[in-house]
Amino acid sequence: MARTVERCLLCAAMTRITGVRTLDVRAPTSRTLAGSDAVHTDPDYSGAYVFLETDGEHEGVGMTFTIGAGNDLCCAAIEQLAVLVVGRDVDELVADSAAMWRDLTNHSQLRWLGPEKGLIHLATAAIVNAVWDLSAKTAGRPLWQLVADLSPEEFVGLVDFRYLSDVLDRDEALDLVRALAPTKAARIAELRRDGYPAYLTSAGWLGYPEEKVRDLSRAALADGWKCFKTKVGVDIASDVRRCEVMREEIGDLPLMADANQVWDVGQAIEWMRHLEPFNLRWIEEPTSPDDVLGHAAIRRAVAPVGVATGEHAANRVMFKQLLQAEAIDYVQIDACRLGGVNEVLAVLLLAAKFGVPVCPHAGGLGLCEYVQHLSVIDYVCVSGSLDDRTTEFADHLHEHYMNPALIREGRYLVPEAAGYSIDMWPESYAALTWPNGSEWQ
Amino acid sequence: MARTVERCLLCAAMTRITGVRTLDVRAPTSRTLAGSDAVHTDPDYSGAYVFLETDGEHEGVGMTFTIGAGNDLCCAAIEQLAVLVVGRDVDELVADSAAMWRDLTNHSQLRWLGPEKGLIHLATAAIVNAVWDLSAKTAGRPLWQLVADLSPEEFVGLVDFRYLSDVLDRDEALDLVRALAPTKAARIAELRRDGYPAYLTSAGWLGYPEEKVRDLSRAALADGWKCFKTKVGVDIASDVRRCEVMREEIGDLPLMADANQVWDVGQAIEWMRHLEPFNLRWIEEPTSPDDVLGHAAIRRAVAPVGVATGEHAANRVMFKQLLQAEAIDYVQIDACRLGGVNEVLAVLLLAAKFGVPVCPHAGGLGLCEYVQHLSVIDYVCVSGSLDDRTTEFADHLHEHYMNPALIREGRYLVPEAAGYSIDMWPESYAALTWPNGSEWQ
Repeated sequence: MARTVERCLLCAAMTRITGVRTLDVRAPTSRTLAGSDAVHTDPDYSGAYVFLETDGEHEGVGMTFTIGAGNDLCCAAIEQLAVLVVGRDVDELVADSAAMWRDLTNHSQLRWLGPEKGLIHLATAAIVNAVWDLSAKTAGRPLWQLVADLSPEEFVGLVDFRYLSDVLDRDEALDLVRALAPTKAARIAELRRDGYPAYLTSAGWLGYPEEKVRDLSRAALADGWKCFKTKVGVDIASDVRRCEVMREEIGDLPLMADANQVWDVGQAIEWMRHLEPFNLRWIEEPTSPDDVLGHAAIRRAVAPVGVATGEHAANRVMFKQLLQAEAIDYVQIDACRLGGVNEVLAVLLLAAKFGVPVCPHAGGLGLCEYVQHLSVIDYVCVSGSLDDRTTEFADHLHEHYMNPALIREGRYLVPEAAGYSIDMWPESYAALTWPNGSEWQ
Repeated sequence: MARTVERCLLCAAMTRITGVRTLDVRAPTSRTLAGSDAVHTDPDYSGAYVFLETDGEHEGVGMTFTIGAGNDLCCAAIEQLAVLVVGRDVDELVADSAAMWRDLTNHSQLRWLGPEKGLIHLATAAIVNAVWDLSAKTAGRPLWQLVADLSPEEFVGLVDFRYLSDVLDRDEALDLVRALAPTKAARIAELRRDGYPAYLTSAGWLGYPEEKVRDLSRAALADGWKCFKTKVGVDIASDVRRCEVMREEIGDLPLMADANQVWDVGQAIEWMRHLEPFNLRWIEEPTSPDDVLGHAAIRRAVAPVGVATGEHAANRVMFKQLLQAEAIDYVQIDACRLGGVNEVLAVLLLAAKFGVPVCPHAGGLGLCEYVQHLSVIDYVCVSGSLDDRTTEFADHLHEHYMNPALIREGRYLVPEAAGYSIDMWPESYAALTWPNGSEWQ
């Protein structure tokens, strides 16, 4: 009888995923050139949204980020992959979510479309993130806290160490996490008091004229921003001018530059000589995101300027090699390019093992809302350090979010709402749905 | 007046792409486990077909290969990308096809879904291959000959050297191709007489029982096959047994093994110790296809067994690094995983520069039909050598092709029909169309 009662209580507490919907959400950002860079000249910041319907109180909401065309393909891929979680109990999925992750990335037929890269991996991220959102909402906690509250054993149990074991295995990861566990509470309190350091990209979109860059930089300084990034890579003269304008406005504050993959290896090294006077903290995406050895060559040549990459690093295996080859000074995880929360944790652990700071990519629709959780997890559970860390922020599109990322004096406030912060307002979904939302009429 | 006449003559000779159709073609191979391996346990060999409609005599037919689910997503991606070639003249496209290739792989929004990898790159391959098929049909020549007839300058003009210039630039590539140009005719005559060396995978699919492997090996030997491959990677005992059976049947003939990405780096090295007695020529895909440094570590450990990979190498940048890192002994290009003919040529040139033999991946639906052209181009124009070269063959599904790959005594005959050999019979399209073709009823 006792067992029967226990079972019934358990059943009552279960939340089962009963169905899936997707929504093609796009913001017409190309009209203002917000988000423009040397390669992505006309982005429409978009999210392929997935809604995991349940028999419980909450839906799980997840998203992967794209820049417009093809967002519909991501939605279609999500629908095909999501059958692997429909019918499952969310607590069971999360409790063994390394296995869930393995199932999603190793579908015996769909994996041919990757494996673990490109569109199918973006779709994986949306689903994984939605499962975590559902779990956090059900637990009534923000995602970062749900993860931070786990024991070290549970934490490393979320990671699929496949293809990593030559560099990092479960035991070594466990040692890393265990060492920081006793002091988690102090770091959480610190972040709740001070926020997490951030930098601003919004002043330097490549499509902006000089005076707009100048005005935006001044406004950002007045708002308390202390770290900035500019886009580069169209031509040397205009890059130099853009850096001059930024330096005139922000003085000696940290300045980074982002080339968005536009150069060959030798070209990157040559070009960066012209930017030496500007004392850049890092050059971001100087060449193909696949070129581990190329990044290593560039890093050797441009020091003391750091090299950063990762928003297009396809998976944890690419990050493993970027770290093995000493190719980067900054690990730029992306909440959706990697296959969702579980694979991000793997990369946080890899970065900690190599002692390289994680500075997440954000700025795109919903990405700031996502990565604020990941930065908190990194500091609280994995790295234990804020040294040389800063998380990207761009100041557009947040009005669409029910629980938007909040900035005070150039730092992210710790998100406190239950879930993974990716729910939009109903009116925003309606307005941004492509191609029939009001924004697209 | 003269100018007007010239224009009209030119117009008459032009073939303009006027529209695009796609077709989701799937063969239910999972019913027999043909094609099965340690990771792809139930493949339905499939092609996402594209038909470039024209105002001329011919359609351009192209395809990318998948193993079932998601083939529809490839068709949808093809339709979005193909707008970049619709309305264009095929001769203009091919004459400046490095630019066409750059346009397709750098669509300012769709590139986010790759870049240059996964589903969107598979779709790129289908379109690029279709343009080449159209060009070859219009010229009345097989694809390989169309390319082999180009001058060295025209040949290297087909390649986008972006991201390669630190290792190989246009001038160096031109030197390679020029050196072989005077002797092209002799190699063409040799291949037309003797064929191109091949190996057989069909005897060793992982889902086959021992007696079937034995029977198929005997039949293959009787047909003149002299080089074989088996699948491995499920468990050591059964791998050893499978290799024993193959060796019992084929004696000292060359034998390769294919692990299809199933191992971690250390695991691959350990596992291969158990296969030492079988004197394997290569171990194929021992770990993640993204793990350049992992392959290099495995290669150092398992020599003199060679390491082969490439059917899942996302693009030329990955091959560049596999060669730079001395990670592989055999370059396994895939006609569809790489972004079509143009990117394959880039990898052939890279392999020649490093002196590593190219042994194309094939076996999947249409892949043998494709790569037979690429092997001829490699020998005639780029490598000038047959040493240690062998091209994969699997003996199923060829009945669907109007101009199937032909084998004699374990060698591919040179294809002579105009085009790129990927047209199916109308009845085959009808039977294999998913989900309503007769094969799927």
